[in-house]
Amino acid sequence: MEKYKDLIIVGAGIAGVTAAIYARRAGLDFFLFEPATIGGQLLYMEKIDNYSGIPTGSSGSDFASGLKDNLKSLNIEVTSQRVERIEEDSGKFQVNTDSSLYESKGVIIATGASFKKLGIKGEEGYTGKGVSYCALCDGFFFKGKEVAVVGGGNTAVEEALYLAEIAKKVTLIHRRDRLRSLDYLQKELFSKNNVEVMFNSEVKEIRGENFLKEIIIENNKDKNTSSLTPQGLFIAIGVRPNSVVARDFLSLDEKEFLITDEYMNTSRKGVWAAGDCRKRPLRQLITAASEGAIASVSAYKHIRGGYISS
Amino acid sequence: MEKYKDLIIVGAGIAGVTAAIYARRAGLDFFLFEPATIGGQLLYMEKIDNYSGIPTGSSGSDFASGLKDNLKSLNIEVTSQRVERIEEDSGKFQVNTDSSLYESKGVIIATGASFKKLGIKGEEGYTGKGVSYCALCDGFFFKGKEVAVVGGGNTAVEEALYLAEIAKKVTLIHRRDRLRSLDYLQKELFSKNNVEVMFNSEVKEIRGENFLKEIIIENNKDKNTSSLTPQGLFIAIGVRPNSVVARDFLSLDEKEFLITDEYMNTSRKGVWAAGDCRKRPLRQLITAASEGAIASVSAYKHIRGGYISS
Repeated sequence: MEKYKDLIIVGAGIAGVTAAIYARRAGLDFFLFEPATIGGQLLYMEKIDNYSGIPTGSSGSDFASGLKDNLKSLNIEVTSQRVERIEEDSGKFQVNTDSSLYESKGVIIATGASFKKLGIKGEEGYTGKGVSYCALCDGFFFKGKEVAVVGGGNTAVEEALYLAEIAKKVTLIHRRDRLRSLDYLQKELFSKNNVEVMFNSEVKEIRGENFLKEIIIENNKDKNTSSLTPQGLFIAIGVRPNSVVARDFLSLDEKEFLITDEYMNTSRKGVWAAGDCRKRPLRQLITAASEGAIASVSAYKHIRGGYISS
Repeated sequence: MEKYKDLIIVGAGIAGVTAAIYARRAGLDFFLFEPATIGGQLLYMEKIDNYSGIPTGSSGSDFASGLKDNLKSLNIEVTSQRVERIEEDSGKFQVNTDSSLYESKGVIIATGASFKKLGIKGEEGYTGKGVSYCALCDGFFFKGKEVAVVGGGNTAVEEALYLAEIAKKVTLIHRRDRLRSLDYLQKELFSKNNVEVMFNSEVKEIRGENFLKEIIIENNKDKNTSSLTPQGLFIAIGVRPNSVVARDFLSLDEKEFLITDEYMNTSRKGVWAAGDCRKRPLRQLITAASEGAIASVSAYKHIRGGYISS
């Protein structure tokens, strides 16, 4: 196997796949590395309503199959290796995977992010079956229903507020005795009459059959347990970018998201970032795809010498 | 008909449609105005290979039907009126269409852009049938074939260079005796041995049967005519944003594209722009869709009071 190509794309979620499509069409030689399944977080999504052009209500796994078909149609191969370290030697990049060493003129990092998990019984099994990590993605499916949100930071309170406009009732469950979110968000939250907040409360177990049915909550002061039966449970305790490969190599923000400009240039010439691993205004499938396209065209310009502006 | 809603979205190309999808899912009340057909420039696209998730090679009109289905599934109505003027009265927006006056708390401008046309016989008929206005969109379909590019500015030269990597031969046809593009682009162009430049030359007619077959070229000095038989003709004489509605109301760049930040905020609070009418790093379907989503979430935050960050 040849070890040197124009470009290396790290990750085959929607950002990396879109970058690969644009790179193929531009005639670049590249590797696309993905140690797991094509589609990344798509695989955890039950239904997708907000990616214009694909049928409303498509499943995440159908969407991921669509991406696989896109790659196949353009003869793009995925190399099933995990990228572990990237180094630069005067404009050339050495990329170490779990099984070999590769070299390229440019690298696109599209490694995604992972939602922090509660790590409780039932969480994994009911993800996409009532349990979600993204109100903006899945909130609409709970129109007129009862939902619960876990967390106490800005994201949790924002998600509770967003859901309050859609759902019949929202219960915010937080393990501390006060929220950590910004004041104006808290004020807004307490002004809603379809929102209830449970303090000192931790979700201990998620139960159901085919779909979420019940959550078991423990009060961490008096250790009493209670039960709620929301149709949806949104876990909003944080997101962790998969940026370990970029640590000490590229500029990251305080939460370790990669910092780029609008051309997806990172702090290092010849390296671009796209999708959930990047600090960005909106974390969605469609924005990740767009960023993959932009990163790929930026890479093309850099590698081929500065052209194609539109 | 009610004349006041939270939000008004101007234009139902892919940016406006995506904004509408996000607005519906967030529970906003809105109008979506489009005087012509849903899908905008999509209708001129023969084949789409670079919008991840939809089948490779889908036609523009299939894609536009997909957008119509998305709107239908979410019960989003399109109001068939042309927006002619927007005014602000202390945070409320008056939107004048060709038949009535509407009011809202926010406006998303997604009016798109139009490629400048040569205005010659055959141009309209063969658009999408060999004639294209975007090398990055359609260049790949001419792999190993002969193509011609019309124009002499940066975009034309960049497109010729891009095509030179894909096509067997590229002829650049320019009406003046020298190129207007940046020096380094010209140098790069003249270094390619599969690129030929015809100066003082104007395409006068496009001929074919089902597909482009021949172009008639006039030398504007000696008035001699000649003929070329490329498989593809790329017209790269400029793009005009459909921003007339924003003139004197919002900040535009020197080419009249709307200036925004990465949240799609224009120079006026309560007004956002998305898609081809906006100054942006990459003019593509996927970037327009992404911008529609971002603009819509920014509008939601503004209208509902500052929340939902991810």
